[in-house]
Amino acid sequence: MFLRNQWYAAAFSRELAEKPLARTILGEPVVLFRTETGKIGALEDRCPHRSAPLSAGKCAGEAIACGYHGIHFDASGACVLIPHQPNIPPRLRVRAYPVAERWGWAWIWMGDPAAANPETIPDYWWFGAADWQSFERLYKVEAHWELCADNLLDLSHTPFLHPTTVGIPEMATIPLRTWVEGNTVFQQRVMKQVTPSPFVAEWGGFKGKIDRVATLTWLPASNISVEMIYEDAATKIALRLTQLVTPESERTTHVFFAWSRNFMLRPENEPRFREQSYKVMDEDISFMPLQQACVERFGQFRTIPINADATLIEARKVVQRLLREEQGAAAKLSA
Amino acid sequence: MFLRNQWYAAAFSRELAEKPLARTILGEPVVLFRTETGKIGALEDRCPHRSAPLSAGKCAGEAIACGYHGIHFDASGACVLIPHQPNIPPRLRVRAYPVAERWGWAWIWMGDPAAANPETIPDYWWFGAADWQSFERLYKVEAHWELCADNLLDLSHTPFLHPTTVGIPEMATIPLRTWVEGNTVFQQRVMKQVTPSPFVAEWGGFKGKIDRVATLTWLPASNISVEMIYEDAATKIALRLTQLVTPESERTTHVFFAWSRNFMLRPENEPRFREQSYKVMDEDISFMPLQQACVERFGQFRTIPINADATLIEARKVVQRLLREEQGAAAKLSA
Amino acid sequence: MFLRNQWYAAAFSRELAEKPLARTILGEPVVLFRTETGKIGALEDRCPHRSAPLSAGKCAGEAIACGYHGIHFDASGACVLIPHQPNIPPRLRVRAYPVAERWGWAWIWMGDPAAANPETIPDYWWFGAADWQSFERLYKVEAHWELCADNLLDLSHTPFLHPTTVGIPEMATIPLRTWVEGNTVFQQRVMKQVTPSPFVAEWGGFKGKIDRVATLTWLPASNISVEMIYEDAATKIALRLTQLVTPESERTTHVFFAWSRNFMLRPENEPRFREQSYKVMDEDISFMPLQQACVERFGQFRTIPINADATLIEARKVVQRLLREEQGAAAKLSA
Repeated sequence: MFLRNQWYAAAFSRELAEKPLARTILGEPVVLFRTETGKIGALEDRCPHRSAPLSAGKCAGEAIACGYHGIHFDASGACVLIPHQPNIPPRLRVRAYPVAERWGWAWIWMGDPAAANPETIPDYWWFGAADWQSFERLYKVEAHWELCADNLLDLSHTPFLHPTTVGIPEMATIPLRTWVEGNTVFQQRVMKQVTPSPFVAEWGGFKGKIDRVATLTWLPASNISVEMIYEDAATKIALRLTQLVTPESERTTHVFFAWSRNFMLRPENEPRFREQSYKVMDEDISFMPLQQACVERFGQFRTIPINADATLIEARKVVQRLLREEQGAAAKLSA
Repeated sequence: MFLRNQWYAAAFSRELAEKPLARTILGEPVVLFRTETGKIGALEDRCPHRSAPLSAGKCAGEAIACGYHGIHFDASGACVLIPHQPNIPPRLRVRAYPVAERWGWAWIWMGDPAAANPETIPDYWWFGAADWQSFERLYKVEAHWELCADNLLDLSHTPFLHPTTVGIPEMATIPLRTWVEGNTVFQQRVMKQVTPSPFVAEWGGFKGKIDRVATLTWLPASNISVEMIYEDAATKIALRLTQLVTPESERTTHVFFAWSRNFMLRPENEPRFREQSYKVMDEDISFMPLQQACVERFGQFRTIPINADATLIEARKVVQRLLREEQGAAAKLSA
Repeated sequence: MFLRNQWYAAAFSRELAEKPLARTILGEPVVLFRTETGKIGALEDRCPHRSAPLSAGKCAGEAIACGYHGIHFDASGACVLIPHQPNIPPRLRVRAYPVAERWGWAWIWMGDPAAANPETIPDYWWFGAADWQSFERLYKVEAHWELCADNLLDLSHTPFLHPTTVGIPEMATIPLRTWVEGNTVFQQRVMKQVTPSPFVAEWGGFKGKIDRVATLTWLPASNISVEMIYEDAATKIALRLTQLVTPESERTTHVFFAWSRNFMLRPENEPRFREQSYKVMDEDISFMPLQQACVERFGQFRTIPINADATLIEARKVVQRLLREEQGAAAKLSA
């Protein structure tokens, strides 16, 4: 079960260049492509002629050309050229998905096209903002999308999964505050005078204890951002993690992850910061498939919640409510 | 659904030598072997004693010996030796398939043995004929057998899939003639004064325009041959492609492909000709699994035909008619 | 269908050290671990909190700690620590399996815990006995556990599967005696004045013919030992093979195999003896998956028995009787 009437990150903008890009989203094979004039398109990844994947073809002007028989379709899904004949059968067309580019991502709308409004794409203003630098990576994870989202929604895991990098013991026991506004779920942890983790100490040049505030914002289906503020009397730095979780299938997920910071901005700092960030992320990314495999071996996901699960429980409630709303709307349409 | 009462290419004759050969045909595991006196046999690839595959055994005189307990079966499927005991239980026997060798292939008949007549094996006289040279290759393709056959039945793909090798733009638009005689489907394209493709120009030493005639013959289940004649005022050369399509399963296929020519017959020409032929074939063979994967992702094969599909539509009609006939015959027997 | 009320070899004792060990037994994922005080535990390999595999965690004192959120469970399956909160929900516990260590193995009981009596673990006294030396190996075999057990229950295969190592032609035709005592099945072959196989000749330094007695003992589910005695006028040596067959799933099996001998006891003989033993075993182990694949291709195991199958038929009868008894007992409980 997927929420359909949501914007999902489909690709980094930079991935859409000379060649079409195949990406399965919510179980549906999609081909994304950029036209000669710079627009982007997203079509069902199947040529209706003989079921060749359009992603095996090539970008051709304002269209995409099938690699087998050279038939062209534009971004609206209409066939605009059959090399073998002048007439074009009207039903020779492909399903098109609404798309929009924002914050360095191509976003796709998998639900009712009439409801697609790019203004509802989350506001991730720090991409491209002055004094902020970002880099990002796409992970294909063999785990259900909710398991991927849980990881960041539940930072109490950090002392155990990241003991030598960003974990601090306090993270497990510090009280967390969770609140919901509409479809948005928030989480905040305020820690006063704690010892920074090895990585954080290095980033801020902290010699002693620091204050830290971690504020997380979750938007459905699962677009998460975390603002981490670390400070002592002399220094205050901020880190933002952006994790866009796009289901590929019921058991695999595209995790678009971006690290943004307002410190260590000199180019020579970049490699070290990347190395550390990827190391932490690898610890998370390599654990999720273990959890998925466990779920599959036992046939279903089962949980006994503890206090630390408060935020992810709220996020799940929003997803369940929106799923009911979508199904209700669909029922009304078909009645 | 497979046609059973047809001769299928099961192996190149040269593949049947010292060791038994395992090959799955129409979803049925078969072991092929050659006896001491040079005959060939084809049995169900399972020892009835304890379900070991006979193909893991060895050729033994006029029989095949199971590799586990040494029990011998002859080409009729009868058990002829149990090393452990003198008496042979009569029901200890294996299903045997009719086989015949012709044109360098071992052909197998997967249907009613009483209907197996080697005289109905297609006439591919150019194998072994004077002034003709051939070489061949077996491809195991992850695609439904009809997708494999379609490729050669529909040469209009050549400008798009083979743009730098054998494709010429005219192939997409030149009128094709398709006709049916009994169970045989023919296709012909006649092109006058066209520019040869790079490979053809090299083969014939053509400097300017040429005439070309491509005549294709399809026989069920899917044995295809194409005669290509290229000529200008000075030179006339002919190439024959033979493509024997044998289903391994509903989603994998053995494609036996042979290239025969009456030009460039000197041994020193062979490597270059092979290299070119394999390159073109690789372009086809690597595309079919993309199409199959697309079909599987969407759950079924769907098509919207264009004019260029005329020949493969006729071939499919013959297959559908023969399938109905086989099922009718089966129904009559069981009534 | 598995027998549950039996002791199964779960691991070599030496495998349980610093790190938890994941092993699937009778289709159930189990984590085995050794505590600080040297006891062993076996739990269902799933943290009840959020379905992370406990085997991805670590040994922690008398408990195992989940790798995701650091929750601790002891060998009884009780939760003994949640780092995030003082209270422990009583239902936060994991299923525990009875375990016992004997003869260098950790044994597990997958059935009714109340019926688990370590005194019924088979008596393999030669492990650790004076004048006996052993080494062992664990094979993960892609074959049903009964196919794995069949291999050793039916030594008539040796001349065919091991022609150059331990096979002798007489093995196929020498009369075998099979008898049953309770749940134990025995098999004996007595051979007088036969030529030893190449390996046996080397082990005993035999120059001419020898007498040999092979006595096999099978205990359910499938724990097999074979005593081989080889002698001539001057020399008498004994070899014991111990094969503990533990189903991993319906189609994969853990085969624990040990070679024990009362000859060639000097350390410098060990490498040669290991090399020979592994070579023979590899011939068996590589054949079983061929048989399994054949069974799966044809959808079921089918057999036509010959005289040499006498012992494995008796073993299957015991398994079938015990299965009926377990199901009867289960039926009574649920009635």
